[in-house]
Amino acid sequence: MGVLSEGLTQILIPVAAFIGLGFALFQWFLVSKVKVSGGYGDYSGYKDRLINEGETEEGVDTLEVSIKCAEIQNAISVGATSFLFTEYRYLGIFTAVFGVVIFLFLGSVKGFSTESEPCTYNTGNICKPALANALFTTIAFFLGALTSVLSGFLGMKIATYANARTTLEARKGVGKAFITAFRSGAVMGFLLAANGLLVLWVSINLFKLYYGDDWEGLYESITGYGLGGSSMALFGRVGGGIYTKAADVGADLVGKVERNIPEDDPRNPAVIADNVGDNVGDIAGMGSDLFGSYAESSCAALFVASISSFGISHDFSAMSYPLIISSMGIVVCLITTLFATDFFEIKRVSEIEPTLKRQLVISTVLMTAGIAMVTFFALPSEFTLFNFGTAMSVKNWHLFFCVAIGLWAGLAIGYTTEYYTSSAYSPVKDVADSCRTGAATNVIFGLALGYKSVIIPIFAIAIAIYVSFSLAAMYGISVSALGMLSTIATGLAIDAYGPISDNAGGIAEMAGMSHEIRERTDALDAAGNTTAAIGKGFAIGSAALVSLALFGAFVSRAGINTVDVLTPKVFIGLLVGAMLPYWFSAMTMKSVGSAALKMVEEVRRQFNTIPGLMEGRAKPDYATCVKISTDASLREMIPPGALVMLTPLIAGTLFGVETLAGVLAGSLVSGVQAGGNEHAKSLGPKGSDAHKAAVIGDTIGDPLKDTSGPSLNILIKLMAVESLVFAPFFAAHGGLLFKLF
Amino acid sequence: MGVLSEGLTQILIPVAAFIGLGFALFQWFLVSKVKVSGGYGDYSGYKDRLINEGETEEGVDTLEVSIKCAEIQNAISVGATSFLFTEYRYLGIFTAVFGVVIFLFLGSVKGFSTESEPCTYNTGNICKPALANALFTTIAFFLGALTSVLSGFLGMKIATYANARTTLEARKGVGKAFITAFRSGAVMGFLLAANGLLVLWVSINLFKLYYGDDWEGLYESITGYGLGGSSMALFGRVGGGIYTKAADVGADLVGKVERNIPEDDPRNPAVIADNVGDNVGDIAGMGSDLFGSYAESSCAALFVASISSFGISHDFSAMSYPLIISSMGIVVCLITTLFATDFFEIKRVSEIEPTLKRQLVISTVLMTAGIAMVTFFALPSEFTLFNFGTAMSVKNWHLFFCVAIGLWAGLAIGYTTEYYTSSAYSPVKDVADSCRTGAATNVIFGLALGYKSVIIPIFAIAIAIYVSFSLAAMYGISVSALGMLSTIATGLAIDAYGPISDNAGGIAEMAGMSHEIRERTDALDAAGNTTAAIGKGFAIGSAALVSLALFGAFVSRAGINTVDVLTPKVFIGLLVGAMLPYWFSAMTMKSVGSAALKMVEEVRRQFNTIPGLMEGRAKPDYATCVKISTDASLREMIPPGALVMLTPLIAGTLFGVETLAGVLAGSLVSGVQAGGNEHAKSLGPKGSDAHKAAVIGDTIGDPLKDTSGPSLNILIKLMAVESLVFAPFFAAHGGLLFKLF
Repeated sequence: MGVLSEGLTQILIPVAAFIGLGFALFQWFLVSKVKVSGGYGDYSGYKDRLINEGETEEGVDTLEVSIKCAEIQNAISVGATSFLFTEYRYLGIFTAVFGVVIFLFLGSVKGFSTESEPCTYNTGNICKPALANALFTTIAFFLGALTSVLSGFLGMKIATYANARTTLEARKGVGKAFITAFRSGAVMGFLLAANGLLVLWVSINLFKLYYGDDWEGLYESITGYGLGGSSMALFGRVGGGIYTKAADVGADLVGKVERNIPEDDPRNPAVIADNVGDNVGDIAGMGSDLFGSYAESSCAALFVASISSFGISHDFSAMSYPLIISSMGIVVCLITTLFATDFFEIKRVSEIEPTLKRQLVISTVLMTAGIAMVTFFALPSEFTLFNFGTAMSVKNWHLFFCVAIGLWAGLAIGYTTEYYTSSAYSPVKDVADSCRTGAATNVIFGLALGYKSVIIPIFAIAIAIYVSFSLAAMYGISVSALGMLSTIATGLAIDAYGPISDNAGGIAEMAGMSHEIRERTDALDAAGNTTAAIGKGFAIGSAALVSLALFGAFVSRAGINTVDVLTPKVFIGLLVGAMLPYWFSAMTMKSVGSAALKMVEEVRRQFNTIPGLMEGRAKPDYATCVKISTDASLREMIPPGALVMLTPLIAGTLFGVETLAGVLAGSLVSGVQAGGNEHAKSLGPKGSDAHKAAVIGDTIGDPLKDTSGPSLNILIKLMAVESLVFAPFFAAHGGLLFKLF
Repeated sequence: MGVLSEGLTQILIPVAAFIGLGFALFQWFLVSKVKVSGGYGDYSGYKDRLINEGETEEGVDTLEVSIKCAEIQNAISVGATSFLFTEYRYLGIFTAVFGVVIFLFLGSVKGFSTESEPCTYNTGNICKPALANALFTTIAFFLGALTSVLSGFLGMKIATYANARTTLEARKGVGKAFITAFRSGAVMGFLLAANGLLVLWVSINLFKLYYGDDWEGLYESITGYGLGGSSMALFGRVGGGIYTKAADVGADLVGKVERNIPEDDPRNPAVIADNVGDNVGDIAGMGSDLFGSYAESSCAALFVASISSFGISHDFSAMSYPLIISSMGIVVCLITTLFATDFFEIKRVSEIEPTLKRQLVISTVLMTAGIAMVTFFALPSEFTLFNFGTAMSVKNWHLFFCVAIGLWAGLAIGYTTEYYTSSAYSPVKDVADSCRTGAATNVIFGLALGYKSVIIPIFAIAIAIYVSFSLAAMYGISVSALGMLSTIATGLAIDAYGPISDNAGGIAEMAGMSHEIRERTDALDAAGNTTAAIGKGFAIGSAALVSLALFGAFVSRAGINTVDVLTPKVFIGLLVGAMLPYWFSAMTMKSVGSAALKMVEEVRRQFNTIPGLMEGRAKPDYATCVKISTDASLREMIPPGALVMLTPLIAGTLFGVETLAGVLAGSLVSGVQAGGNEHAKSLGPKGSDAHKAAVIGDTIGDPLKDTSGPSLNILIKLMAVESLVFAPFFAAHGGLLFKLF
């Protein structure tokens, strides 16, 4: 046993979660001190005034402009909320149906028998019936789904609360605006990390009331939490991704290329839809996604631990190691955040990117020390893990290395992503240069750059996998994933900062604020684009580790000891699995393309038929564009969603666990690459042809980086966690097709 | 033993090869009856006249125009020949150096000992020393390289011989032109199939003089033949691919988009380079590529057979089963060709595509009967194969199914490819439709279509793999690959027909022939584009099977019995292997991009600085454009070539055979998908903006389909055959890194 007693563990985890929640609320309070009162217009009824008293207005930023800000903010918030509520209605139906599927499939493993049965790993003891596992897995699934939706929704709320405030603060200077945007990102980061931890801890303790000493069943049921979180994330990412890119592509192609009006110009009919999209896609979607990763890696680690000596000997503190790491992560991220908002102050535009990058380094360094502490206090100095049937003896400092290498691999991925997406370095400069000869060469260079950007991350992931696999088998992989995600609050703060700044810029433009203000928000936005890419790099990197961990857990649970490429069942699984990311991308890209096509036509139609629109004398019909994006995304998210949700069920039921294992491995190794394509980014020197070429290139890269790419993270994780949850069923009744022939 | 005696086998194989050679020469003779005499200009010295006596000239096609055709043909031929000779000089150096590497690595397996040693599989017998195997592998490598280069070169020769002849025949009607182009394609197809078979048969018989009863060593050495063929193919494909796309992209972007002049307009300075590119890339490169596939699948099948009961019991006819299938293939393809050139005559443009498609069906149906014959005559009714350490008993009709399913999977891939690339069906129509909203939506749709086009081929390959793997283990896979390639002569004829027609159209345009003629050559070209895509579909499909077969042979040779995804060594190999196609594509696309950039600038420069060029009063400087393509392709083919050639050596030496097995499996499952991207094709209704968007989309798709895509076939095959050749070394001395730590 380690130093940490069970009682202390049971106190420390919720305390850390409440610290996180409290800090998030405090940050929200600080943001709320920027006053945006009033607003009127189509969306809200009231007409109170908006003004920041006691501040010097700059240039043309009059009272009227400020009122406009509030009005726009309100329009965006109302649009995003209404979209999410519509989306959640669909998700509610899905969740209910899929909950029933889980219960029926898992209940049927032992024919819905209510009798207890001998344990699988903890031999000689009696475990709860399969029917109970079916029920609790379903409950955990609902809890995970709920927490995921909540994470996304709260994120959207704070983001749409902060965007106009950031714009208004930009009048005082770039530093103030930065702090407002970053604090709002932190609200989202800490809310998500703390909520995720708290709900998980509460669930485990509640489930324990029933399960008692049957930890096998307890932690098997908990895996439903990961499945719930991840399936919501899938639809959130895909739906939000299609929404945002349909609007973005539509707005850019007509506005920037055909009409030569700037980004976020209020004359563009798709501009509100575009800004709503940032909040439902990049904020709510990403929130659900990262919550999913967090929930899944925790579940994978807990499940693997439950069948190791931790579980067999009922060492609760050691079992809770994944939760304690996350608790430590919240504390570390709290300190890290202060470095950006309180310890130093940003004065110049050029300081923004370094400050954000410094956040990554500080959190990584502090967390390394934190991991060391947690490892030595929570774990016994030596213990036994199971490596697909064979026992291996592991020392606690082995696990320290596993978690730490995941953490540092994340930093390496973050820095590589920054190198390939920041305009400060040669790759992006080369791509920008290629615009001189037109859109085609630009896209060719951009795609090549995107392909190239996966090389270093893949090596970083490969090293992390090799080291942690060698030191602690599949448990090593799962805590390595947790290590990468341990600083999730900071990662998410940096990530959410991007779309908030983007919105702030949009509001400044739409409200007709001065050139100077617009320049400041542009600078915030530019830094945000790079950091958003870093966030996506983290998401895909952690997804690779998480899904490998889940894959390992699945294989353990399904009772497979080898997944041999040299057997036809596995090989065809591998081949078909590697194809799935392409199939999925084809679906989502086509969806974005069709929706964008409709959007382009609508925007063109409005410019052609509404008299005075180009001259700014008439208002465009924003609502129709919002509706196009909404309808398209809700309709189009179903086929790719079905592909992901049904593949494991079909493969497992018809072809059995070996083929399914092949499918998972294939989609993992292929999806993690394809996810790297996302970085195809292009900047062109403003000026007729080269700039237009850059916009076209940007437009092509957009669905890759914001719809297909990020959704692929979820594809690989979700199929793995779904396989894990359904593993008892597949092991019992799977492979129908081979049984028949 | 089967019905076929050794003596009869030794007669039948060379007879089939000579029939193929004879038929090829006869077709060449028929093509040569179209007279193109004379030609003058910058490239050749002589000024003889060119005229087709006794024919009715149509429209403006006067004597002068015909002379111009000969002149252009000559310029293309001289350009292509000079490029290939320069390329071969580089390849000569590479081959010499790599030959030494092979000899040293393999010789060192037993420390360059000249003593005989006990056999590995044929236990109880004495085999030749490892040093002899090193020497003969090196010789086989040289022979394979030479045959590969010869295949590509002869193909280029006939293609540049036939292009102007096709143009001139187009004056008489579309049917005559079609027959000329198709016959020329057949020349290439039969020369390659017959040469490949003959050299292999001669090599085996010569090597047997030394090896005698040591068939293990004999067929191990023969694998060098596949490595030689494939490594030449790599450089041919990459170099040729960069050449052709740099010229094509450069010509299109300035000519079609900026200057609004038609394709192949003689005023375009890059037009000669573009036409040369078709011959060095799509003809010579593809010839080497398919020869490589053929050589590799034969070597893989022979090697696996040599360690089965065929080899142990010295049943030469059964051992030669792969060669007998290829012999039968030549006969079947000969009959098939007559259906296109002699049994029916094409009268209308609309008959071209169906005729080409019918070739695929006829050859597949006839070959199925052929396989049945060969299988029942050449094989004993039951025999033993080795499935990674365990023996399995196989019946001869099992092998019939293995070969046949490969053959039919090829047809399925061909038809799917046609569906996704022919303008007759909805996918291409959708993409064309998306041009209405600009280049960006066009590219998004095109990429989505490309991703989608892999789905059915992957399932076809998966079924072929599952069936043949289950029936006859790795031997089943390798003969399945041979089945797909058995109709290679017809496949290649169809494939080569494309660039020949393309060139014919170019010559018609450049020579200023009438609109009617140009329409005929355009129709030939359009059908050729689709069939070229079918050819690429075959190439990637067979590459998947071939590399799996080689992978199996490598694993057998390296003494591995399982490749377990659940071990860290294998998993990281899988992950990194899956990344390699992206790395490789990044390199080649960037190369095309840079070269195209230079080309665009040069073409723009010429248009801007040469007075009277646009008005047709001055001649452009074709030679500078040819030089840009040549220099770029030769310089840029080295890094991707090095990546492919060095990866197996580094992975095997440093990380050992398990990791290398992972790398091969990963690159296989990932590369076969990425290769499918090639089909992104776009057609737009001619007319300003939509048409320009289509040209941009086409330009982006081009390097994917003609440079990166086809090269990926070679990447996956070449790494596998290289691993197989070096397997004895890796098994003996590999995994240095793990041995050190």
